[in-house]
Amino acid sequence: MIDIETLASRIVPVDAAAAENAQRLLDAKTKPRRSLGRLEDLVCQLAAIRGGAVPMRPEKKVIVVMGADHGVAAEGVSAYPQEVTGQMLLNFARGGAAINVLARQAGARIVVVDMGVAHPPPDRPEIRQHRIAAGTANFTRGPAMTREQAMEALRTGAELAHQLARTGVGLIGIGDMGIGNTTASSALTAVFTGAPPEEVTGRGTGVDEATFRRKIEVVRRGIQVNNPDAADAIDVLAKVGGFEIAGLAGVTLGAAAARVPVVVDGFIAGVAALAAVRLAPPVAGYLIASHRSVEVGHRMVLRALGAKPLLDLDLRLGEGTGAALAMTLVDAALAIASEMATFEAAGVSDSGR
Amino acid sequence: MIDIETLASRIVPVDAAAAENAQRLLDAKTKPRRSLGRLEDLVCQLAAIRGGAVPMRPEKKVIVVMGADHGVAAEGVSAYPQEVTGQMLLNFARGGAAINVLARQAGARIVVVDMGVAHPPPDRPEIRQHRIAAGTANFTRGPAMTREQAMEALRTGAELAHQLARTGVGLIGIGDMGIGNTTASSALTAVFTGAPPEEVTGRGTGVDEATFRRKIEVVRRGIQVNNPDAADAIDVLAKVGGFEIAGLAGVTLGAAAARVPVVVDGFIAGVAALAAVRLAPPVAGYLIASHRSVEVGHRMVLRALGAKPLLDLDLRLGEGTGAALAMTLVDAALAIASEMATFEAAGVSDSGR
Repeated sequence: MIDIETLASRIVPVDAAAAENAQRLLDAKTKPRRSLGRLEDLVCQLAAIRGGAVPMRPEKKVIVVMGADHGVAAEGVSAYPQEVTGQMLLNFARGGAAINVLARQAGARIVVVDMGVAHPPPDRPEIRQHRIAAGTANFTRGPAMTREQAMEALRTGAELAHQLARTGVGLIGIGDMGIGNTTASSALTAVFTGAPPEEVTGRGTGVDEATFRRKIEVVRRGIQVNNPDAADAIDVLAKVGGFEIAGLAGVTLGAAAARVPVVVDGFIAGVAALAAVRLAPPVAGYLIASHRSVEVGHRMVLRALGAKPLLDLDLRLGEGTGAALAMTLVDAALAIASEMATFEAAGVSDSGR
Repeated sequence: MIDIETLASRIVPVDAAAAENAQRLLDAKTKPRRSLGRLEDLVCQLAAIRGGAVPMRPEKKVIVVMGADHGVAAEGVSAYPQEVTGQMLLNFARGGAAINVLARQAGARIVVVDMGVAHPPPDRPEIRQHRIAAGTANFTRGPAMTREQAMEALRTGAELAHQLARTGVGLIGIGDMGIGNTTASSALTAVFTGAPPEEVTGRGTGVDEATFRRKIEVVRRGIQVNNPDAADAIDVLAKVGGFEIAGLAGVTLGAAAARVPVVVDGFIAGVAALAAVRLAPPVAGYLIASHRSVEVGHRMVLRALGAKPLLDLDLRLGEGTGAALAMTLVDAALAIASEMATFEAAGVSDSGR
């Protein structure tokens, strides 16, 4: 069984020299230096993560979508009933959700994990069972989960990432499903960044004004009642987090330990990645922020990660949809590095700069 | 032979009712309303352009890359020698350039057109010949081309777009190649928007400080010497434009007349699209702005077009590279519209809003 603290201590910083070599390779290609901007940054980051040469063909890609329920949904913080979490897992299994469509487009496989939904769908081979409980407890009345449950979720994620890396997966996306999980993510963001609840709480899947006010109050109460220790990320995850969020933090740790880049979806996945960085700071170098979510708290998360997202498309769906879209940019960047001609081979005059 | 004024007068505004129908279709899908943001906007725009239902599979895609030389290059405004324009057309024909790689990634075919380079590459079947002259004249000493040459370039582009539309192409990207063409584009932008030269002139493929100052002066002189009539887009194109720019404006007009969306690359393609809009204002509804270029003048062009680009990746390469990247988002949007399950079919509870 993976020990999370041992795993975290083994994650090494990405390799800056490999990034410089990748930039030299790009500078020989038939285009003005740096004219492909962030695609070039991506190539260099991927080289730094591998600690060697840029991969010469598209990576095998998986998006891990973890679902779980949240006791705090009882406070009426979502526009949707809790049944939807399990219904959507079934929708993922059947291939009808947005993430199914966008993952197909990106050439990525999705791995769906039930980390603990309240109304589980019928057993399906497409849904992995790692149910920690039938949803977390309502964190306005005490911790969302025990510390041991948080550790279990982290281990589950880390082990999954290791399995994927062992089978040759070279790019892992992380996405979420969970009615009420923007509320948990706002609470986590407030604790991790020190920002007041009203600055990190948004409208989630689309709640009205009264619900929005209540949601801010719920976040404030959750933090007050539990008083999580911001310096202890596991304590924070346990007290105001969620099973899928802790699970995705584990996936992030496991991927970084295996030197596999993590394509982070939006707000919820972003908070999970931030928790992983708090557990092991070098993880930050392994993250590719896919998009800037409409959710206001995501801005704080991105700032805390020091990450600039690739896309800004007013998305607020989750499921890993932004990660899937960004994966096509990663593939494009790798194709540039491996398929473009050099000035010399193409007989094109260079500017000499 | 196509008459440009007749063509321009036939372009109809896009269909707002079709866009509303497309939004209703999206609202029945298993996701919170509007949670896919700009992908949903794209679906609605594509429906409005077709004036009917959303296409149920990816469109057949072509990126038109037009190359030509610019007499103004003699003023020393580029970091690269003029030979590079022809060398790059050959690189496009051989498949080694960035646009070849990114078009392949996007599943798009490229159509390369020599509109008039100074040092033409050897004949190749992959390069269409529509050479108007061996580059434009130096616009600091008189008009870049005659009015008849500008009309010829516009007709060439419009006819090409019609041919493509007739063979079932449903999405046309426009990209450019031409040493010196950011200088021409800055001059065009200054005239079309009324902005002073220093606010619309950038560093192109990467010129030093002295060259940058000279470039601004060259733009100013070009406008002073030729005094183009901002209300007459053909006059502006002729006096300070380029063969590839006028050609791409023609492609844009032809595509809009055939109700085919145009994916506009960066600064140079953007100016071409703006010229087309000035010739026929309803063209604006047919444009998909692919990305925000690093070139400062592009901001003005986007503002004049009322367009918000899909991507912002610090690109400044041209060739249609940004258009190719954006085409993958268009495909993703269409896949969402055609492949996602509805709440009803998937048995997922809707929020009722």
